[in-house]
Amino acid sequence: MPLRQAIERSQGWHRRLTVPQFTVVTGLLVILLGTLLLATPLCSSSKVGLWEALFTATSAITVTGLSIIDVGADLTTAGQLVLAMMILAGGLGLMAITTFLQGFVVKGTGLRRRLDRGQTLDEFGVGGVGSTFRGIAATAALVILVGALVLYGFGFSDIPDRGERLWASVFHSISAYNNAGFGLWSDSLERYHDNVLVNAVVMVLIVMGGLGWRVTSDLASQGVRRGRRRLSLHTRLVLRTTLLLVVFGTLGLALTEWLNRGEVFIGMAWRERWMTALFESVTARTAGFTTVPFSLENITDSGTLLLMALMFIGASPGGTGGGIKTTTVAALMAATRSTMRGRDAVVIRNREIPDKVVLRALGITVASLLFVLAMALLLSIASNLNGAEPFTFLEMLFTCISAFATVGLDLGVTEQLGRFGQAVLMLGMFVGRLGILLLLSAIWEVMTREQIHIHRQNRIGYPREDLYV
Amino acid sequence: MPLRQAIERSQGWHRRLTVPQFTVVTGLLVILLGTLLLATPLCSSSKVGLWEALFTATSAITVTGLSIIDVGADLTTAGQLVLAMMILAGGLGLMAITTFLQGFVVKGTGLRRRLDRGQTLDEFGVGGVGSTFRGIAATAALVILVGALVLYGFGFSDIPDRGERLWASVFHSISAYNNAGFGLWSDSLERYHDNVLVNAVVMVLIVMGGLGWRVTSDLASQGVRRGRRRLSLHTRLVLRTTLLLVVFGTLGLALTEWLNRGEVFIGMAWRERWMTALFESVTARTAGFTTVPFSLENITDSGTLLLMALMFIGASPGGTGGGIKTTTVAALMAATRSTMRGRDAVVIRNREIPDKVVLRALGITVASLLFVLAMALLLSIASNLNGAEPFTFLEMLFTCISAFATVGLDLGVTEQLGRFGQAVLMLGMFVGRLGILLLLSAIWEVMTREQIHIHRQNRIGYPREDLYV
Ligand SMILES: [K+]
Ligand SMILES: [K+]
Repeated sequence: MPLRQAIERSQGWHRRLTVPQFTVVTGLLVILLGTLLLATPLCSSSKVGLWEALFTATSAITVTGLSIIDVGADLTTAGQLVLAMMILAGGLGLMAITTFLQGFVVKGTGLRRRLDRGQTLDEFGVGGVGSTFRGIAATAALVILVGALVLYGFGFSDIPDRGERLWASVFHSISAYNNAGFGLWSDSLERYHDNVLVNAVVMVLIVMGGLGWRVTSDLASQGVRRGRRRLSLHTRLVLRTTLLLVVFGTLGLALTEWLNRGEVFIGMAWRERWMTALFESVTARTAGFTTVPFSLENITDSGTLLLMALMFIGASPGGTGGGIKTTTVAALMAATRSTMRGRDAVVIRNREIPDKVVLRALGITVASLLFVLAMALLLSIASNLNGAEPFTFLEMLFTCISAFATVGLDLGVTEQLGRFGQAVLMLGMFVGRLGILLLLSAIWEVMTREQIHIHRQNRIGYPREDLYV
Repeated sequence: MPLRQAIERSQGWHRRLTVPQFTVVTGLLVILLGTLLLATPLCSSSKVGLWEALFTATSAITVTGLSIIDVGADLTTAGQLVLAMMILAGGLGLMAITTFLQGFVVKGTGLRRRLDRGQTLDEFGVGGVGSTFRGIAATAALVILVGALVLYGFGFSDIPDRGERLWASVFHSISAYNNAGFGLWSDSLERYHDNVLVNAVVMVLIVMGGLGWRVTSDLASQGVRRGRRRLSLHTRLVLRTTLLLVVFGTLGLALTEWLNRGEVFIGMAWRERWMTALFESVTARTAGFTTVPFSLENITDSGTLLLMALMFIGASPGGTGGGIKTTTVAALMAATRSTMRGRDAVVIRNREIPDKVVLRALGITVASLLFVLAMALLLSIASNLNGAEPFTFLEMLFTCISAFATVGLDLGVTEQLGRFGQAVLMLGMFVGRLGILLLLSAIWEVMTREQIHIHRQNRIGYPREDLYV
């Protein structure tokens, strides 16, 4: 077969992929590439074998930040550069894809056709898809650059070596904006726990990345125009929910850890306590940096459950963070409020939300919950069959949520988990990062036509019947 | 004012109540009456003051079974009789009311009008409301009588005194059918942990009470007619979900307690282990008897979470049990499955379920979850302000779920909780027994007309807008 035909055929294969399928395949390929790169002596010390490289690559591309190696010590500068590139690819790549997919329901259309389809371009403003992708990249570059400059100039001023300081600033800025939570130091950001500037810059980067491009560009364009144009429902809802969750998390941690005598805040001044509570509230959704050492010994049960809830909820759709997303929770809460008021329609901020959006939010939440519980059960059984019982179920569940919501907070479990457990975590990171719905639609779309056929049949075939609840 | 007018006016007041309001008011009045009765020397020893009597009455009328007294020792036979009557009133009373309400959406209609309304009578078969209520009473009397006879003749044959044996049989039969979980012995049914017959009879009574009258009568009428008539969707769904949950709970407890080395099953033969796991799986939803002593020391974390999940789910609607109900969970699961398959409509067993049913199930679940968490938080804060920290958050949460879902399983927390904590539990039992929706509709209906007005306005006024999740 001539070369040209072979290329065309392979391009054809590529074009036949739907967006979700494209995402899964690309993700797996990048993990493979990253693993091979990270395992070479150029990138890492002899401590990093193929397994460690695979885990690190998976954690990086899913912007989780769970790690079984010491990034600062076990990776060379080249290795850290590769890591940063993978974080960027994973964070911004999925940001672009989810922003793109937000515009319409995912249903059996090839990538090319979808990219070309005129009717969907309205979703992305005048410029269409290309300008959206460029906007995402430009916003990221700008924010990361400013973040790195501030960290370099004021935040990390205790680092004497300029090159080292610059790289630390850039790396942490990339890691924070992409909600990745990877750091160059084995104690995350604990050494800056009382540094207001570092806390503030990292929090701003995390939140901006977590809001998603739609929201930041909506805000930016309003700022530029200075007009009376209202922000979209999506933007308002994301901002409101994010603010509520940050405040709720901060007050909650203050409540559970001060009143309940957790040991995390012991020896801190009041101002630092509030700053730490705020930082942990922000970082739990879903960056994964930390300025205090966490373990079940020094936080209370209720604090652990609160962190688990924040991690599970995560950031906003179309952002760099993970979790079931703020809008999902907002939709569930709105549905609950409407039900409690005896209304049939779900209303958010004077807008009626279609039932199918609520059903989708419900499906995402329940499926994610079941997936996380299944992960924890697997870890639990595995660790008990091994004979040792080093961790409680709560610690396992915490770690699984941390992986699934791509948070990266660790109670000290990941490293000691054994390969089976680590494999479960890797699967969790991958599934959690893509989202169960995206992953399933990648699978369903393989059988698109049959699906549609069955679907239609069902719509006609099933009689409606009421149910008592 | 002449007597006749006063009577008519008070009757008018009574008639103007809606069914939910009638339920709340009656419930409170029966609690008041029960408290006064139980506090008298005729019914109880000097250990039982007004507070203890109030807690016991609330626990009995809500068929919870949490107790701060020793029913067998602190109550006289007359007191135990009053307790049994309250359990019957609470169990069968709410069974009748919820069965009655299942037929239609609760919305601003007076009790009289609703009882007289012809169109709703179809819901209850040819005989109408009266025959339904008679059917519920007759079924209960028959089942409780048979249960008591079997317990008397074969189960409790170790009790030498005939009168004592008879009363124990009748009391436990009433308590089991009404999912109340009250027993005459301070160790619940632990003394019969290896008695297959007692285990079996109690389980059958619990399950029959928990299924609800609609289901048992549907089953009975099919048995009688021997025809090919299909069971209703409701009956099939309740039976299937109940079976799944019982099996899931049994296997789950076996898994978490055997594999994870919980200490509950230590020293038992295999057959007894399975029987115990089965019994605890049945009783957790939501009878509250137990044949083994539970505490956080002897069950694993994962076993505790499993029990909490089973308790929270509870029995079926229109039954004597509590919780968010099996059909609610089935609706949520069906919605999740449909979403995962990319369908817009929710389908259960080839029947399309209206969106509003799913939204209602979602609202009930989320509101219940938030309520239980708020209860646990209150207990947690109160116990920490008291200075002592005798219980973990998990123990608090377990107790709150046990109260809210009217289960009555206790890790040893209730008695030592202090009055504030016990008041929180009483509120939880009352709200949980009536259900958040019923309670809210009792409140909303006070302002029925304004509601409907606002409601209509909203339906026209709110534009629809999509939301990205
Ligand atoms: K992360
Ligand atoms: K009970």
